[in-house]
Amino acid sequence: MAPVPDVPRDERHFVLTLSCPDTTGIVARIAGFLADAGGWIVEAGYHSDPATGWFFTRQVVRAESLPFAVDELRERFGQVAAGFGAETQWQVTDTGERKGVVLLVTAEGHCLHDLLGRVATGELPVRLDAVVGNQDGLGDIVRAHGVPFHHVPFPPPGNGRRHGARTAAFADLRELVDAHDPEAVVLARFMQILPPELCRAWAGRAINIHHSFLPSFVGARPYHQAHARGVKLIGATCHYVTADLDAGPIIEQDVIRVDHGDTVADMVRRGRDIERLVLARGLRWHLEDRVLVHGNKTVVFR
Amino acid sequence: MAPVPDVPRDERHFVLTLSCPDTTGIVARIAGFLADAGGWIVEAGYHSDPATGWFFTRQVVRAESLPFAVDELRERFGQVAAGFGAETQWQVTDTGERKGVVLLVTAEGHCLHDLLGRVATGELPVRLDAVVGNQDGLGDIVRAHGVPFHHVPFPPPGNGRRHGARTAAFADLRELVDAHDPEAVVLARFMQILPPELCRAWAGRAINIHHSFLPSFVGARPYHQAHARGVKLIGATCHYVTADLDAGPIIEQDVIRVDHGDTVADMVRRGRDIERLVLARGLRWHLEDRVLVHGNKTVVFR
Amino acid sequence: MAPVPDVPRDERHFVLTLSCPDTTGIVARIAGFLADAGGWIVEAGYHSDPATGWFFTRQVVRAESLPFAVDELRERFGQVAAGFGAETQWQVTDTGERKGVVLLVTAEGHCLHDLLGRVATGELPVRLDAVVGNQDGLGDIVRAHGVPFHHVPFPPPGNGRRHGARTAAFADLRELVDAHDPEAVVLARFMQILPPELCRAWAGRAINIHHSFLPSFVGARPYHQAHARGVKLIGATCHYVTADLDAGPIIEQDVIRVDHGDTVADMVRRGRDIERLVLARGLRWHLEDRVLVHGNKTVVFR
Amino acid sequence: MAPVPDVPRDERHFVLTLSCPDTTGIVARIAGFLADAGGWIVEAGYHSDPATGWFFTRQVVRAESLPFAVDELRERFGQVAAGFGAETQWQVTDTGERKGVVLLVTAEGHCLHDLLGRVATGELPVRLDAVVGNQDGLGDIVRAHGVPFHHVPFPPPGNGRRHGARTAAFADLRELVDAHDPEAVVLARFMQILPPELCRAWAGRAINIHHSFLPSFVGARPYHQAHARGVKLIGATCHYVTADLDAGPIIEQDVIRVDHGDTVADMVRRGRDIERLVLARGLRWHLEDRVLVHGNKTVVFR
Repeated sequence: MAPVPDVPRDERHFVLTLSCPDTTGIVARIAGFLADAGGWIVEAGYHSDPATGWFFTRQVVRAESLPFAVDELRERFGQVAAGFGAETQWQVTDTGERKGVVLLVTAEGHCLHDLLGRVATGELPVRLDAVVGNQDGLGDIVRAHGVPFHHVPFPPPGNGRRHGARTAAFADLRELVDAHDPEAVVLARFMQILPPELCRAWAGRAINIHHSFLPSFVGARPYHQAHARGVKLIGATCHYVTADLDAGPIIEQDVIRVDHGDTVADMVRRGRDIERLVLARGLRWHLEDRVLVHGNKTVVFR
Repeated sequence: MAPVPDVPRDERHFVLTLSCPDTTGIVARIAGFLADAGGWIVEAGYHSDPATGWFFTRQVVRAESLPFAVDELRERFGQVAAGFGAETQWQVTDTGERKGVVLLVTAEGHCLHDLLGRVATGELPVRLDAVVGNQDGLGDIVRAHGVPFHHVPFPPPGNGRRHGARTAAFADLRELVDAHDPEAVVLARFMQILPPELCRAWAGRAINIHHSFLPSFVGARPYHQAHARGVKLIGATCHYVTADLDAGPIIEQDVIRVDHGDTVADMVRRGRDIERLVLARGLRWHLEDRVLVHGNKTVVFR
Repeated sequence: MAPVPDVPRDERHFVLTLSCPDTTGIVARIAGFLADAGGWIVEAGYHSDPATGWFFTRQVVRAESLPFAVDELRERFGQVAAGFGAETQWQVTDTGERKGVVLLVTAEGHCLHDLLGRVATGELPVRLDAVVGNQDGLGDIVRAHGVPFHHVPFPPPGNGRRHGARTAAFADLRELVDAHDPEAVVLARFMQILPPELCRAWAGRAINIHHSFLPSFVGARPYHQAHARGVKLIGATCHYVTADLDAGPIIEQDVIRVDHGDTVADMVRRGRDIERLVLARGLRWHLEDRVLVHGNKTVVFR
Repeated sequence: MAPVPDVPRDERHFVLTLSCPDTTGIVARIAGFLADAGGWIVEAGYHSDPATGWFFTRQVVRAESLPFAVDELRERFGQVAAGFGAETQWQVTDTGERKGVVLLVTAEGHCLHDLLGRVATGELPVRLDAVVGNQDGLGDIVRAHGVPFHHVPFPPPGNGRRHGARTAAFADLRELVDAHDPEAVVLARFMQILPPELCRAWAGRAINIHHSFLPSFVGARPYHQAHARGVKLIGATCHYVTADLDAGPIIEQDVIRVDHGDTVADMVRRGRDIERLVLARGLRWHLEDRVLVHGNKTVVFR
């Protein structure tokens, strides 16, 4: 992660997240640890899940209120976390370090344009490392934003030579992405199903936008399915990619009203507004460490 | 239909609906017919569906602008409609006649209370003929509103004697409902699956509220299903009842946001707000002749 | 407060709220206090306001996890709270005690019907002590729900004898309400402006529903104002009553879409749906101690 | 207007709009005129306003169903329209002709990026003639999209020389815009108040996005005003520009939920999502001839 040059010391924060089996005293131990070090908590979320017996928290501390840097905080907080058992998952990040993102696209540019705009205005403070396109039509606008664009064509699924070419394309994709070790790999209407080994390699980092209100209309052509069923709202779902198609943990969803006058083409056009928004929100929350995954569900501290 | 005593002549309207195979000149012929009679159109909706090649319209005319009563309008408009082919469906209603409604309930009273309140305030100008309850717990409040309540217990599905008792219960239900020949039979959380012959008998009049955003979570315990999937919105669907469970033409849907902190019980409670609203909206539109059914879809002129 | 007979011991919770000038270590001290007593926190909200330098928290603890009853918790927590300075405000309530509510109404029944329905279904677990009506038209339905109804007519504002009668009516109202010492006095479309002394007496407990999206359309006939301006959404606002008309701390707001086809009468009818919902939500949050007031703003831990 | 090269003849439509004093027979005369020429109506909206006694319609006809071109349609429809009186306003446009748009911006790029993306994806089928910027920071991205960018600095309001420079800047702006005779002049966060003569010259074509839910928070710094009042929703309003600041006819509005945790900076960031959407919707409706203005209100046929 590169330092964010425009974040002054007194606006930097450390973000701590932790999940572990629930018991009494967790909040007290974390709060006590921070208070002993002089830490000023500016934002805190807690969730105790009665169904799973699991505890989740996210805390934001003013960097300048602590007498040590992020590495030492990580070491010390790791010791606290260790006390909550072997299953505990935790993380400490520094908002003064800009996180890396790689986007995967094909031909539909609406999510790409939206994210480029958000990066350009500073609204989404990330380091956009690269865009990889299954087609090359979006390359010019990506480069105009000063971001590297790589064209990796994916032949349609098939046997023999076609299968080999497809496997090679995924290998190229993986190499291009992993070279940046990004905090998020965003399938911004990528339209290719990732092979299981990529789902594993990017688990918890690969984020997809699906153009329906899941679990309705899984798979291909969801707007056609929605039109055929005559629903009165269409939606979009931002979720982590898993090997189980369109069934990964949901980060965010939203809907938009349609009516009998909307053709499939109208739904496609109108649905883009909600796809853009839902992906942008989900990605932001992911990058702000607001999303904690447990099993196939998420806790989102908004 | 009983006359609505509080609708003065100059606020009465005639509502004409028609659907037929689309062609040029339909609007002109209907509009010409009305104009020739001096009819003042105050509201008009048109829909031409390119996918099915079907045309739909709803027109609202000031009753006092026409020189004849509703019966003669029906006869004359029927002649116009006949010109659009044998498949044409049409209807003429008079807003000066209050429509009849029968409600079917079990134990959950939130939709019932809401509809009783809307009738009491005059917001839903209907003639509430009766409420039939699978249980009797809601009888007192129904009677306090001056509406007859009938208790018809439905044994759970089963074989032999149980099956016979269930068949008899549905026969009782049908008799109680059909005695009023209502324009709407509302399953306000009735929780019983209507047998196919009742679905046929009440086709286009039986309205159900399902507590999910269909087609997600068809069948029983939809909030449990939604909780297990970790969706970020829950919904409700108002639809016409058909023999195909939860698959009839959708009239209206809406959603409400939930998050990781919501238990199934929270979803049940919060979902009620959206069930109430969606049912009340769908029922109102049905009673105002705003809903035209074609195949398994609806055209809703809002 | 009367005990809630249907809340088993293991589902009872204590709700602690506190606001005070922000500093480091508050969370740690509260969490430490609870952890030392074995308290199991099931829900916790924190807010640190950089603009005012003020801190707010709401914590929900399982009653059975603590070795003492609510009175002793109050005493002990009061000692902790005292350590945060003289301006600190705090409260401890027991969800096993049902809170008292008095409703004030006039002629429009939509909010009343909605709240009666929510109480009847158990959705709003309150003790509905009484309804006071400026008119008596809603008395029958209130009594059908087993709730006392008092008719206190309010003459329109004026001088001399009329002024005296109005003052006497407010004195009667105050006596009727204060006899129950309710946790909430709900102006469910009461349509009378409370005199300053009642605003003071019921500060933080008197809740009004205003039928516009404040601060738009303050005062009388907001739907007429909205129609004249041609807005595309109308709204409702639930707020605490203060001596400054329609300017008290806002608890909740929501909106509903309207269009050019909606007359003022349509807006009135459609707006009721949003008034009902916004009032019910705001009242629930107030009764669940989710609303903390600071100056003219609220912190709402949803 | 330039022809749209990618619209095949059989997908072209003619859009007719008309408003006039209401009377019986208008629908019949328009429908009869179209039917006599073989016109196939695919979309039709009617509105009869009881408050003003005015009638509004928008009709969409398949171009290939008529035996004449748009110019002859205009002439013939103009004769029909003349029969409805001298106050009648009407228009006929051809969806095969791409409409021209000029954007005015300053430094905030979120609306600009959004509109550029919509044009690039073909979602907003316009001819983007030019962007004029009060500052030049957004020039590079505009030019990367192949659109001319003109930098016209506007000194702040003042007397003497400053006043003169400002007047000259507005004259330059007018010349740059009028050179394209655009169907829409979009103030995409332009942050300058247009002088009355420009409001008049561009009446019904100049479209502004205001970052509040008007009429709340007119004027400068609306998010600061919203934060101070503690509202629970913030909004955006797309309206026609008139000489009366922020008081022109409203085309579209929408809102987004905020809470106590949102600072003014958060509101600014989150509000952008709603500004983008509301402006894009309003502009689309304007360009599709869906917006008819009457007095200070709009009829929007969606």
